[in-house]
Amino acid sequence: MKQIKISEAVVRRMPIYLQYLNELHKREVQTVSSQDLGQKLDLNPAQIRKDLAYFGEFGRKGVGYDVSYLIEKIRQILKLDQPLNVALVGAGNLGHALCNYNTYIKDNMKIVAVFDANLAKIGTKINNLAVLPMSELNKMVSELNIRIGIITVPAIEAQNVANQFVEAGIEGILNFAPTILKVPEEVRIHHADFTTELLSLAYYLENEGEKMYEPTMD
Amino acid sequence: MKQIKISEAVVRRMPIYLQYLNELHKREVQTVSSQDLGQKLDLNPAQIRKDLAYFGEFGRKGVGYDVSYLIEKIRQILKLDQPLNVALVGAGNLGHALCNYNTYIKDNMKIVAVFDANLAKIGTKINNLAVLPMSELNKMVSELNIRIGIITVPAIEAQNVANQFVEAGIEGILNFAPTILKVPEEVRIHHADFTTELLSLAYYLENEGEKMYEPTMD
Repeated sequence: MKQIKISEAVVRRMPIYLQYLNELHKREVQTVSSQDLGQKLDLNPAQIRKDLAYFGEFGRKGVGYDVSYLIEKIRQILKLDQPLNVALVGAGNLGHALCNYNTYIKDNMKIVAVFDANLAKIGTKINNLAVLPMSELNKMVSELNIRIGIITVPAIEAQNVANQFVEAGIEGILNFAPTILKVPEEVRIHHADFTTELLSLAYYLENEGEKMYEPTMD
Repeated sequence: MKQIKISEAVVRRMPIYLQYLNELHKREVQTVSSQDLGQKLDLNPAQIRKDLAYFGEFGRKGVGYDVSYLIEKIRQILKLDQPLNVALVGAGNLGHALCNYNTYIKDNMKIVAVFDANLAKIGTKINNLAVLPMSELNKMVSELNIRIGIITVPAIEAQNVANQFVEAGIEGILNFAPTILKVPEEVRIHHADFTTELLSLAYYLENEGEKMYEPTMD
């Protein structure tokens, strides 16, 4: 497939489309309109048509999008049509929760190794994965061809873990620690901080009845 | 303070500014430039000046922003200058992890009650909070003036919990379940789905060396 350059906002909407399309597929729904998608996902149907048009003419007027075809296309776009191995560092509550999510991530992306600096945790199991010591990180990353790393350690240890990921050759990092991390430009980092979502929610509580600006679409 | 209408993208950047400003404050740094903020947070300094100008003329040319004053202003904007009580439903690993985060959320926002439908969990403790049965939800929400609800139950139970939050008078919901929830228009809902972040990360892995479009700034 030709490499298409799309904006970050569009990339971030793709997994949301995919999630709902997978739900439709499970319910054996075969076609969906941009109107339906928009209503369910709280997005503008025109925006959805524009997003999906990035990848060719999927939809047919009056019929809508073929659910299976759209799933296949989005999986290609997100490169989920090939196995993608993930490592997680930090076998605490959040690490456990994420490993449990493994069952949701059917799209070839999988947590295949868990690490922790705490010796007391080494060898304990999360789902079916034995927690490994940090000294094994480098070896496992190359042996299992791990390309993404997840950080679920306390803020104070997070930069150190990021450095070890970078050294091991990890290409993308998802950071859950509530701190800003620095990585070389060629490594992609996404921050998934709970508090950001929670604190921005607060802003809206007392604006009831007031007309807000519409969220920007891209 | 006069109610200012700002776009969703700007609101979402405010907690990110706040987090870093709090770090600076802890290190006793007194002023910060939009250049410094931009470099640390990977944002365009012009965008930062524009964001902060929403709330009056904070910065002084050549001096930068006063860290304490900016913290105070952002806390006002996000309404974190007043106590804001939060309830959490779902006392699993993720629920535990979020309750542990309570120590990070210093800004008056606090998880004050935890609920679970599983009778075996009732009465067990997460941090200092005893897990309560769902039948107590209504009463606790009004007694403790809880305005925000967090959902950390499996996808299949999430809509049911959202309905109960709405019925109890919750004004904002943060949903961690990987499914789309419907709530009345007057209730604000934010989705915090791990898989969205993780799947969108995959897109970037094989684009190395290719020039991507710059992420849109608002």
